Amino acid sequence: MKLTSAVLLGLATLSCGAAAAAAPSPLLVIHGGAGVERKDFSAEEERAARAALTEALRKGHEALMAGKPALDAVTAAITVLEDDPTFNAGRGAVFTHDGKNELDSSLMDGATLRAGAVAGVHTVKNPILLARAVMEHSPHVMMVGEGAEMFAAEQKIEQVDPSYFRTEKRWQQLQRALKEEVAGQPHADLETAKHFGTVGAVALDREGRLAAGTSTGGMTNKRYGRVGDSPIIGAGTYANAQCAVSGTGWGEYYIRLAVAHEICARCSTCRRPRRRPGRKSSSSACRSSVEMVAPSCCPQMGRRRLRSIPKACIAAGSEWMACRMSPSLRTKSLRCPANDRYAAAVRNIFIECEDFC
Amino acid sequence: MKLTSAVLLGLATLSCGAAAAAAPSPLLVIHGGAGVERKDFSAEEERAARAALTEALRKGHEALMAGKPALDAVTAAITVLEDDPTFNAGRGAVFTHDGKNELDSSLMDGATLRAGAVAGVHTVKNPILLARAVMEHSPHVMMVGEGAEMFAAEQKIEQVDPSYFRTEKRWQQLQRALKEEVAGQPHADLETAKHFGTVGAVALDREGRLAAGTSTGGMTNKRYGRVGDSPIIGAGTYANAQCAVSGTGWGEYYIRLAVAHEICARCSTCRRPRRRPGRKSSSSACRSSVEMVAPSCCPQMGRRRLRSIPKACIAAGSEWMACRMSPSLRTKSLRCPANDRYAAAVRNIFIECEDFC
Repeated sequence: MKLTSAVLLGLATLSCGAAAAAAPSPLLVIHGGAGVERKDFSAEEERAARAALTEALRKGHEALMAGKPALDAVTAAITVLEDDPTFNAGRGAVFTHDGKNELDSSLMDGATLRAGAVAGVHTVKNPILLARAVMEHSPHVMMVGEGAEMFAAEQKIEQVDPSYFRTEKRWQQLQRALKEEVAGQPHADLETAKHFGTVGAVALDREGRLAAGTSTGGMTNKRYGRVGDSPIIGAGTYANAQCAVSGTGWGEYYIRLAVAHEICARCSTCRRPRRRPGRKSSSSACRSSVEMVAPSCCPQMGRRRLRSIPKACIAAGSEWMACRMSPSLRTKSLRCPANDRYAAAVRNIFIECEDFC
Repeated sequence: MKLTSAVLLGLATLSCGAAAAAAPSPLLVIHGGAGVERKDFSAEEERAARAALTEALRKGHEALMAGKPALDAVTAAITVLEDDPTFNAGRGAVFTHDGKNELDSSLMDGATLRAGAVAGVHTVKNPILLARAVMEHSPHVMMVGEGAEMFAAEQKIEQVDPSYFRTEKRWQQLQRALKEEVAGQPHADLETAKHFGTVGAVALDREGRLAAGTSTGGMTNKRYGRVGDSPIIGAGTYANAQCAVSGTGWGEYYIRLAVAHEICARCSTCRRPRRRPGRKSSSSACRSSVEMVAPSCCPQMGRRRLRSIPKACIAAGSEWMACRMSPSLRTKSLRCPANDRYAAAVRNIFIECEDFC
């Protein structure tokens, strides 16, 4: 395996000394999006990203330490990342072909299987809060476009002028994409990079409840009301009693493979590790699901492209949370089973990661 | 088990005498939506529904017999049902709270894992054809709203005046729903029925390729740009090399459980029947997935409501196609393993079905 790509990924292991012996240790994992290459980041931008990720972890941490549900930690962490212009979610979202910011988000409560999702909103300051309102205050799971904004107004979810979301860096990314499109030769790196930058969080609370959430501005220069995986329950977000996943990467592949649900399905199917000889442990089930995700994409994406898509890393990132039933993961304090370098992520938020293909 | 509900469900077993011995028999399964109670249908309406289902089977059958891919059979069958005003898809779709017809559709090619989906379109005559265009002529999987319609225009997919979709029966259903909403006491039957009527198809072609597709007008009196399971890959539609599913029922539960993908995931995990003692056969894996779907919904939906929701039937309907690897299903000519009455469905399109709870 060769070191091929960089990813903004935040991790925290939070141990809860005050909890009863049988209570699980609260845990929060956040990501600031796959596909962010170090060369595209100035030192100042990197500092800003690290500061925002730290703040997101702190806010989510506070919620968990106060005994609040995993859902609160996920919402708190994602709200911070949506508010920070560094990430492709909320303020700082990428621009559509028409020069708009179009936001998607979803979250899921693993304890109850309740979920909420919104897509194609232009005025909602924190789409994750609207997704939560859809889950908690409507009989529905998913709302899109103007209808979703009407619901936001009724629910008194903060709305802003669309100009709030604009950042110069994202605007210039669109201009570059448009120029390359006109020239008929989109730059491969940009072609890849324009799919990335989504933020997400997965959490485990003291009561053992899991939750997952994801928020994004989608892809630069997107058209036709394209919706990616982030607001699709089962593709970019899924949580149940054993598993919580937030994805980031090339959304279309996440949808086709139903990646978030596939990982959870594998964890559920094989969740009794080492009791019956010959049956897979949850750890190996999750690892094989990561391997499954990556090669399935290879033929269509081409070798070169895949090398710069740390899809597998993110699936692996999710895997840490996903397999909380696995003793090996618990005792190893979230070290990635396939790659020791991941361990660094527990302390360092900005990490290098392996490409699995 | 007690007979509790009626469902419009079409099934066909098509044997292909001309094919080589090793080639699979082409197969087409269609449904015209769960939850249609016989008492709500006049004799004339029932005749019309049967005629449309027969025509849909005939068109899909023709495609398969001509050696065309499963995807063509699915598209052909669903196009017929969208054109017929009997079903809640295309012409004859239910009305939103604002008196509009808002259409959703998706399809998936099991052989390549390519997929296409559209949601919230108002002018596209056959949403299933637009979903197919998204799959074949864009790099995306899902498009929504005006953006999707712009893509339809570019792709020369037939568009019509929104009045084309209007039927008096659906309009009256909306009026009744609005009145009951104002009175604050929505009728429970209507509350349940307003989620249903979706159409769908799954097919297996001579080359062994599977495909699935679904199309709907959503739920009567829906608001806020609500999107149900039908256009969500993994919820209402999924297909891979072993499995193809089209769902119909209360969409929110399909999304939360990622029902279509869950069924396929179970078939894939346990697809080596009877070779290893103690491992589940694909037939029992699918059956347990049906059982999983129904009880998971019970606590939240209440006993009474669930009895009138033939969700399990539809999951079972999909199961027939889903588990084509199972010898028992092949030799029994698609008899439902859990209920002999299903066998009648092979000959009679309008069937009674069991509620699994």
